[in-house]
Amino acid sequence: MSEFPKWVTAVPPRPDLNTETRARERQARLTKPAGSLGQLEELAIRLAGLSGSDRPSVAAPHILIFAGDHGITAEGVSAYPSEVTGQMLANFVSGGAAISVLAREQGAALQVIDTGTLLQNPPAGVHSDKIARGTRNFRREDALTAEELFHGLDAGRNAATRAINDGADLLILGEMGIGNTSSATALAAALLDGDVAALTGAGTGLNADGISHKTRMITESLTFHELDRGGASAADVLLKVGGHEISALVGAAITAAHERVPVLVDGFICSAAMLAAVSTNPALRDWLLFSHRSTEHGHAAILTALNAEPLFDLGLRLGEGSGAALALPLLRLACALHNEMATFDSAGVSSIS
Amino acid sequence: MSEFPKWVTAVPPRPDLNTETRARERQARLTKPAGSLGQLEELAIRLAGLSGSDRPSVAAPHILIFAGDHGITAEGVSAYPSEVTGQMLANFVSGGAAISVLAREQGAALQVIDTGTLLQNPPAGVHSDKIARGTRNFRREDALTAEELFHGLDAGRNAATRAINDGADLLILGEMGIGNTSSATALAAALLDGDVAALTGAGTGLNADGISHKTRMITESLTFHELDRGGASAADVLLKVGGHEISALVGAAITAAHERVPVLVDGFICSAAMLAAVSTNPALRDWLLFSHRSTEHGHAAILTALNAEPLFDLGLRLGEGSGAALALPLLRLACALHNEMATFDSAGVSSIS
Repeated sequence: MSEFPKWVTAVPPRPDLNTETRARERQARLTKPAGSLGQLEELAIRLAGLSGSDRPSVAAPHILIFAGDHGITAEGVSAYPSEVTGQMLANFVSGGAAISVLAREQGAALQVIDTGTLLQNPPAGVHSDKIARGTRNFRREDALTAEELFHGLDAGRNAATRAINDGADLLILGEMGIGNTSSATALAAALLDGDVAALTGAGTGLNADGISHKTRMITESLTFHELDRGGASAADVLLKVGGHEISALVGAAITAAHERVPVLVDGFICSAAMLAAVSTNPALRDWLLFSHRSTEHGHAAILTALNAEPLFDLGLRLGEGSGAALALPLLRLACALHNEMATFDSAGVSSIS
Repeated sequence: MSEFPKWVTAVPPRPDLNTETRARERQARLTKPAGSLGQLEELAIRLAGLSGSDRPSVAAPHILIFAGDHGITAEGVSAYPSEVTGQMLANFVSGGAAISVLAREQGAALQVIDTGTLLQNPPAGVHSDKIARGTRNFRREDALTAEELFHGLDAGRNAATRAINDGADLLILGEMGIGNTSSATALAAALLDGDVAALTGAGTGLNADGISHKTRMITESLTFHELDRGGASAADVLLKVGGHEISALVGAAITAAHERVPVLVDGFICSAAMLAAVSTNPALRDWLLFSHRSTEHGHAAILTALNAEPLFDLGLRLGEGSGAALALPLLRLACALHNEMATFDSAGVSSIS
């Protein structure tokens, strides 16, 4: 039975409820029918409470992409070869990946962290913070040792701390790792005591046969690890079927919450990591904002378990934090509306209240 | 039987299919699993075809808000009094309304056009282009005369022409008009031969009793105008139950299409106007992009009739073009991704194709 280090389970601060209340009152006075800005109103109110500011903003978003490789790819669960993980790291830092474009266009800082790819020498510009090259094949053995799990959590903490020291007021978490939808699916199935078939999707692009095979591999793995009966701890599950980058996502989110920095969560893999994190540290949930509903099959179930209502469903399934980065303008515009709109009184507009 | 002037029914140009094909091919070469950027891929491809450019962009979006008042408010169909229409015009131009904030934050030009509010003297900064102050109460008579309908169409054409002469490469159409969900609902019900109750919503904030009353008023109006049996022309329907600002939306969209400028459509009222426009000029549909699904009850049916899949559903019901303006970042980011991402070849990333 593995356990998390204390900093992972330490309860983070609560949002500032007084500021949240003032923000809710202000929303009611803005020149619009009450509630007519829908989810953007709640978003502004939450960002006020999380930042403790009556004029919330997202001035310095930092995007952290954690990358790792997965031994489970030996079982033929992915449409792409593992080499792509490392190749994409170079693409991230040279500016050609989707997340690179989204970061640049929006003035967001981008940190790429190799937490466990197969690369011997990650490209210049990538932070290397790893203890191993890839995980073990979790169909046959534990994906991680306890030491590796702790190292991954620390890699996340280190990256989040760098970003926050650098002034980050929002963390966008993303990932890259061929094979990691298999790991995330196994993780979610173990934690949700769920039906593997209902949670397994196409990843980067499997066909129906590929998905069947992947489902079988994950089901067999859960049986092998005795994770098919519920009640396992998040630490145990991460160790048995997790990944280096998934551990890092957990560590980064927890660190952000402790530092009062909200986290904008991307798609399936990030949400699975947050499921593990929240299941071990429920107060983390307050600090998480959810960006989009991915087409990856199991995402909906994870979002439901986290009581999360993402902002949009654009049929995305890329990862890299790209869905979260696409939601960033909505956060910024929600804040601008909250801060800059006139009130009924100030504009001389008749209110019905 | 009323008829549109020739410029309204003249067939606009088609999108550039060669550019669209090249854009589709480029999407397949970008460093991401095919299809993994979901609706953003199709958005970039469409914007390429509409702009005729291999590197589409939205550099100069112009927001046009058409405002008008509605005689049907005499029947108690709205939660707000008609004075609010004029009060909000002042708020639009002084920068305190939601759309003012959204325009400013995104560098979009904002044109506010009084096409028929009750105001005698619209505030400075508002274009006045009106032939009447408010429509007639369509429960008892035609909302518009033919001359008024034509004037409204022209007001839309004039505003679109000003924007396009000023360099607009995208028009965002919005509206303001207390009572105009009743007009739009009547319009949609007449054109879709639909169930009024299924199309009638809360507007700015009616309760259940208010919605029942509004449904009854609209149903009686359709019977009075013999619009309850299908087969009416869009021109007839606009004249009988339309509005000055709704005519202007039609005129502006048609003008944009003729000038090869795409239109980003806001919520319920704009979509109802586009339903009227497309039903009379089907080739217009190619030039329309749909932004969001409103909570206004009838929006879904109109979107279905237009075969439109909006980008998000954020529970919005404000109007003013605000939902469309909130979608603008997605258009711009879709273009940036299309233009700036590396290809598998250029980045040395393994492709599965």
